Amino acid sequence: MPALQPHPDRLFPPDPVTRRIARELHHSVRDLPIVSPHGHVDPRWLAEDTPFSDPTSLLISPDHYVTRLLHASGIPLEHLGVGARAPLDEGAARKAWRAFCELWPVYRGTPVQYWFEVELSEIFGVRERPSADNADALYDHISAALTTPEFRPRALFRRFGIEVLATTDDPADDLRPHRALRDDPSWAGRVIPTFRPDRYLEPAADDWPAAVAALGAAADTDTADYRGYLEALRRRRRYFIDNGATSADHSHADVRTDPLEEAVAADIYRRALRGDASAAEATAFRRHMLTEMAAMSAEDGLVMTLHPGILRNHHGPTFERFGPDRGHDIPTGIELTEALRPLLQRFGTTPGFHLVVFTTDETVFSRQLAPLAGFYPSVYIGAPWWFLDAPDAIARWRSAVTETAGFSRTSGFIDDTRAFCSIPARHDMSRRLDAAHLADLVVRHRLGEDEAADTLHSLVSENPRNVFKL
Amino acid sequence: MPALQPHPDRLFPPDPVTRRIARELHHSVRDLPIVSPHGHVDPRWLAEDTPFSDPTSLLISPDHYVTRLLHASGIPLEHLGVGARAPLDEGAARKAWRAFCELWPVYRGTPVQYWFEVELSEIFGVRERPSADNADALYDHISAALTTPEFRPRALFRRFGIEVLATTDDPADDLRPHRALRDDPSWAGRVIPTFRPDRYLEPAADDWPAAVAALGAAADTDTADYRGYLEALRRRRRYFIDNGATSADHSHADVRTDPLEEAVAADIYRRALRGDASAAEATAFRRHMLTEMAAMSAEDGLVMTLHPGILRNHHGPTFERFGPDRGHDIPTGIELTEALRPLLQRFGTTPGFHLVVFTTDETVFSRQLAPLAGFYPSVYIGAPWWFLDAPDAIARWRSAVTETAGFSRTSGFIDDTRAFCSIPARHDMSRRLDAAHLADLVVRHRLGEDEAADTLHSLVSENPRNVFKL
Amino acid sequence: MPALQPHPDRLFPPDPVTRRIARELHHSVRDLPIVSPHGHVDPRWLAEDTPFSDPTSLLISPDHYVTRLLHASGIPLEHLGVGARAPLDEGAARKAWRAFCELWPVYRGTPVQYWFEVELSEIFGVRERPSADNADALYDHISAALTTPEFRPRALFRRFGIEVLATTDDPADDLRPHRALRDDPSWAGRVIPTFRPDRYLEPAADDWPAAVAALGAAADTDTADYRGYLEALRRRRRYFIDNGATSADHSHADVRTDPLEEAVAADIYRRALRGDASAAEATAFRRHMLTEMAAMSAEDGLVMTLHPGILRNHHGPTFERFGPDRGHDIPTGIELTEALRPLLQRFGTTPGFHLVVFTTDETVFSRQLAPLAGFYPSVYIGAPWWFLDAPDAIARWRSAVTETAGFSRTSGFIDDTRAFCSIPARHDMSRRLDAAHLADLVVRHRLGEDEAADTLHSLVSENPRNVFKL
Repeated sequence: MPALQPHPDRLFPPDPVTRRIARELHHSVRDLPIVSPHGHVDPRWLAEDTPFSDPTSLLISPDHYVTRLLHASGIPLEHLGVGARAPLDEGAARKAWRAFCELWPVYRGTPVQYWFEVELSEIFGVRERPSADNADALYDHISAALTTPEFRPRALFRRFGIEVLATTDDPADDLRPHRALRDDPSWAGRVIPTFRPDRYLEPAADDWPAAVAALGAAADTDTADYRGYLEALRRRRRYFIDNGATSADHSHADVRTDPLEEAVAADIYRRALRGDASAAEATAFRRHMLTEMAAMSAEDGLVMTLHPGILRNHHGPTFERFGPDRGHDIPTGIELTEALRPLLQRFGTTPGFHLVVFTTDETVFSRQLAPLAGFYPSVYIGAPWWFLDAPDAIARWRSAVTETAGFSRTSGFIDDTRAFCSIPARHDMSRRLDAAHLADLVVRHRLGEDEAADTLHSLVSENPRNVFKL
Repeated sequence: MPALQPHPDRLFPPDPVTRRIARELHHSVRDLPIVSPHGHVDPRWLAEDTPFSDPTSLLISPDHYVTRLLHASGIPLEHLGVGARAPLDEGAARKAWRAFCELWPVYRGTPVQYWFEVELSEIFGVRERPSADNADALYDHISAALTTPEFRPRALFRRFGIEVLATTDDPADDLRPHRALRDDPSWAGRVIPTFRPDRYLEPAADDWPAAVAALGAAADTDTADYRGYLEALRRRRRYFIDNGATSADHSHADVRTDPLEEAVAADIYRRALRGDASAAEATAFRRHMLTEMAAMSAEDGLVMTLHPGILRNHHGPTFERFGPDRGHDIPTGIELTEALRPLLQRFGTTPGFHLVVFTTDETVFSRQLAPLAGFYPSVYIGAPWWFLDAPDAIARWRSAVTETAGFSRTSGFIDDTRAFCSIPARHDMSRRLDAAHLADLVVRHRLGEDEAADTLHSLVSENPRNVFKL
Repeated sequence: MPALQPHPDRLFPPDPVTRRIARELHHSVRDLPIVSPHGHVDPRWLAEDTPFSDPTSLLISPDHYVTRLLHASGIPLEHLGVGARAPLDEGAARKAWRAFCELWPVYRGTPVQYWFEVELSEIFGVRERPSADNADALYDHISAALTTPEFRPRALFRRFGIEVLATTDDPADDLRPHRALRDDPSWAGRVIPTFRPDRYLEPAADDWPAAVAALGAAADTDTADYRGYLEALRRRRRYFIDNGATSADHSHADVRTDPLEEAVAADIYRRALRGDASAAEATAFRRHMLTEMAAMSAEDGLVMTLHPGILRNHHGPTFERFGPDRGHDIPTGIELTEALRPLLQRFGTTPGFHLVVFTTDETVFSRQLAPLAGFYPSVYIGAPWWFLDAPDAIARWRSAVTETAGFSRTSGFIDDTRAFCSIPARHDMSRRLDAAHLADLVVRHRLGEDEAADTLHSLVSENPRNVFKL
C-alpha cells in the first residue's frame, strides 16, 4: 500500500539552493497563527461544538471542490450525499467514501489531492494513500477519531492555531452562533461574520421582493420604498459591525458600478417590487447599488470585497435537483478598468476605504488589477480565488501582479473554504508557495534574503490584518 | 558544418534530479504505439502507396506551419509550391528547398525547428543542420531516400508504429481510400475517417446550396427541406461510422449552441437555399445546428470535437490566389461558458456523449474549459492545438488545466498534422513534455513517482482510446 | 545598513549549467551600444546640456513608474512634485526623497527596484539600500554628483553608450532641440524625433479643431478641409523624416482600421471641425485615419508603431489637478485579428511597410500577435510594453510569441522611458533576460549554443536596426 507522507519540502522548487532558501523562509512563518478573513465555515459547528458524524458528511458531501471531479468521473451527486437534508446513512456514506477512494487518481495534480494528503496525514494520522483496497479501513479510522474530544470543532479550531475566522452570512441573519460564541466564557476564539448582500441587490431574481421584505423585517425598517431599503441595508451593516464584521462581500456577474440618479433608482426599485422592472433595469439597479455599497463602506468602514465573474448553476437540471454551490458555477470573463471607474472616481482615494478584488479570470491580473492597485490607495489585489487557489495558479498570480504592484498591495491569503479541516493545509500551502516565490527572487538576485523574510512575514501576518482591518 | 543530433534528453528540465525522473518516465512510454485520433494526412498516400516525389513537395509545400514563416521572411508563397496543382519542377523545388535551408534560423525556438531536427535526423539520417551551404546535398540525400521502398508511405506508417490514424473528411466523400485500405489483405493498419461537416452548416457561404445538394446526392436523400437535410447528415454519419469513423469535427467562428424552434430552423433553411437568409439568420442556423450535431452524436455515438475561434483566410489577396489553409488563419478570442450552455443543458450528462474542446485561446484554459470538464462527464479538454502545439505552450496548458481538472479529463495528444513524416516527432514531443510536467510534480512532492508513471501511461494510451472511443 | 550591490549574475536562472550559459551569452552582448528606437526623454536636456538639479526632480517627480506606488501607499502626488511647473524647493524635494526611501520596500519584486538598484549603484556609486535612515545622506550624495561635469546629460549619454535615441514628438513641434543637436559640431550622438499624431486623429477631443489648425500652421497648409488635413500630415511627416525620424507612433483605445469612403471621411471631418460630429463618427474617423496613416507609411517609409488599449487618466480628479501621464492610465483589453484586418488587406504584404505592435494585453501574445507576425512580412512583435517591461512578464512574452513567430519577427528592446538614467539598466535587463531565455532553450536541447549566441546578437543589434530602419 503506497505510503501517505507529505514531504517536508513539498511545493518548494527543485534547485537545491532555492529550496534551502524557501525552506528557511517557510520555517520562519510556519507556526504563525492563521488569519482567515473570508470563508464559508458554518459558525454553528463552533457554537454548538457537536462532533462531526462521519468522514463522508465531513469531507465529501458539502465540498464541491471534491464532488465536482467525482461527478465528472461518472458518480451521480446523489450518491455522494450532495444537497441532501441529512447526512447519508452509514451504508450510503461508506459507499460514497469508497467511490472517492477508488477514484483517488482523478485528483492527481489538483490541490484537492494536496489538501487531502496533508489533512488525512497531519490531522487524522492516516498513513496510506486512499484506494479501493483501504477505503473501509480509512473510513473506520476517521470515524473513530471523530468520536473523540480532540476532533470536536472547537478542539480542532484551537489545534489549527486559528486566530480569527470570518464566516459569510446573510444580512437578515441574526448571527446567533456568532453572538453565542462571543458570550461564551469558555470560548476565546474570534469568529466574525461577513455581510454578503448579493440577493438583496439583484431585483431580477424571483424571490427578490420577499428578500427585501425579510431584510426590512430584520432591520425593523419599512422597505416599501428605496430610502427604506437603503436604510435597512445600513442598519444591518451596523448590526454586523456590532457583531464583529469587518467586511462586506459581493459576488455578481460583473462589477460595473455605473451610478443612477436617485430618482431613477427609486423608480426601478418601486417597480421591481411589484415585478415590473425589465431585466436591463434590474441590472442597472444592481450596478448602481454596487457603488452605493461602496458609499456605505466609505462611511461605516466595512472592507468591500468583490468575487465577480461567475455564471452560477451552469447545468439547469443539476441546480433544480440539488440546489446551488454544487460544482457547476463556471467562470466567465470580467472587465475591471471601465467597470470600476465610476466607483473609483468617487471613492478610489477616500481614506480608509478598502476594496479587495478577487477573480477567477487570470487575464486581468497583469492587465487591469495590478495597475489599479498600483495607483489607488483603496484597491487591493485579492489572493487567487477558487479554481486558482492552487500551486501553479498562485505562482502565475504572483508573477503577474508583483512586478506592477509589489507585495504590499496584495490581500494576504484567504481560504474561502467550507472544508473546515482543510484550513491548516490551505494556509500552509500559501505560505510554502510565497516562500518558494520569494526564494526564486532571492536566487535570481532580485531581492535580498532579509527582504524576502520580511516580506513573507508581512504577507502572512500584517497584510491580511491591515487589508481586512482585523 | 554544425551537427544535427537531437539530444536524448531534449525537452527535459535542466535540474538533474527532475531530468532523471523525466527520462525514466519517458522511457516507460517511448515505444508505445502511436494513436492519432485527429489529423489531416491524405489517406490516398497510404491507399496508393506511391513514393513521395521530392523533399519540397513532401516537407514544405503542403505544410503551412513551415511556409508561414518563410512568407513572413519575404519568400513569396508561389516560390514554395503553395497551392500549386502539381509539385514544383526539379529546379523550382530545389530553389524552394534552398530558401528553406537558408532561412533555417527563422525557425529557432519554434516547434518546426524541433520537429524537423528530429525527423531529418531519425527518419532521413541527416547529420547536419540545414544551411545555405548544404541545401543541395540535403535535397539529394532525401530525394535518394524517397526512391527506396523503406520510404514509401505504408513502410513509414509501419516504421512509425502507428496503431490508428484518423483523417479528416468531407461528409459527401465516398471514403474510397479508407475502404480500399480496409479491403486490402496486405494492409493491417487502421486508417479511419472523421466526419467534418463545417461547410454544410454555414448557410452564409456562397456555395452552400450546391454543397447541401451534393450532400443530398451522396446520401441519396432529398435536401430540399430541412428534414431531408437532417436526414442526409444522419445517413452520411452512419456511412462514416460504417467505415470506421469514431468522431465528428466542427470548426466555426464561435461555439454558441442556441437552439431554434424546428419551424424557425426549417424556415431559415428554406430561404437560405434560395439565397434569401440574412447573415444573422445564417449564423443563428449554424449555432442551432451545432446543438443538432450534438443530438446526433448523443444518438449515434460519434465523439464531437470542436476547433473554434479562428478567422480563416485573413489576407484576402492570398486566399484569392492560393486558396485556404495557407498559414494566415488567425485566432480570435472564444467564449465557452455561455456559448456551450444550451448544448450542455441537454447533453452534458448524457451517458456516452463525448465533447472534446480544442482551442488556440489560452485564456479559456483555466477560466472556462477546465471548470467545464471538471464537472460535466461529457466534456474533455483537447490537447493544445495548432499554434499551441509547442513545448512552452503545452507546459502552460498542463499548468492551467490540471489543477482544476486533473489528468483524466484531458484528451491525450492529437497531432492535427498534414505533415506525415512529423507524426513520430510530434507524439514523442508530447510524451517528453508530459514526462517533464509529471517529473516536476514529483520533485515538488505533489505526486509519487508511481503515480506519475501510471498517469503518463494513461495519457499516451488509455486517454485517447477512451475519449475518442478507439 | 544593507549593502546595495547588484549581483553580476542577477536575473539568470538558478540552475548552475543554465546560469553559466546565460552568463556567457550576456557577456557577448553586454558592451554593445544601446539602440533606443522609442522613448520619452526630453531632447532639450541633451540640446541644452544643463545639469540636473536634484535627485527628486531627476528620479522621482517625472517618472510615473515611481510615483504610482508611492501614491498607492498614501503619499499625495503634490508631495512628490508631480505636475508642478517647477522642481520642488530643496526642503520639499528632500521630503519627497525621504518618502521614497522610507517606502523602498513597496517596490520589492518590481522592476523599479531593479532599475534603481542598478542605476544608484552603477551610475551614482551608491552602496547602501535606500531607507529612512540614509535618505538624507543619499540625497546629498546624488546632489553632489549632479553638480559635476560627468553627470551632465551629454556626458551621461556618452557614458551610457547610446548609439541612437528616439524621442516622441508632436507633429506640430519644430524639433528645435533635434536640429540644434544635429547642427552642433561638438555633438556626435544621434537623437531622432518620432512622429506621434494621436491628438490630430481624435475629433472627439475638445481641442481637436484648435489642434488641426495648429497643425495646418506648422505645415503651412490650409486644414479647413479633409484634403488639406491629409496634406498637412504628409508635410509634417516629411519634416520629421528630414530631421531624422524613422517611425510614427500611434496610441488609441483600439486598433480598428476600418476605412471610410473618402467623401464620408471628408464629411465627418468638416462637421467635426465645427463640433458637429457624433462620438461614433469621431471614432469611425480615427479608425479610418489609422489606415490612412498606414498608407502614408507605405509611401514615405516611416515605421508604424502601435501602443493601443489604454484607458488614459482613469481617475478624473487626479487628471484635473495634475494633468496626463500620472500613473493612472490603466490597460483595457485589445483585439488585433479583426481590427487590423482592413489595414493588412491593403498593406500587409507591401514591401518596406513595417508595423510594430506593442501591447499591455498579454492575452493577444500567442493568440493574435505572434500568428499575425508569423505570416505578414510587415508585422513585427513589439517588446513587452510598460507594465510588462519586467523580468517575469518578459519571460512570459518570449515564451508566448517565440514558438509561433521565432525571434526574427520581434522588434528588439525599446525602453519607452522618460527616466534618462534608467536607460542602461533597462537595456541591460533586456539583454540578461534574453540571455536567460536562450540559455534555457540550450539546456533543454532546443537550440545550439552557437545558435543562441547568434540570436542574442541579432536581438540586441540587428533586429532594432532593421525593424526601425535605423
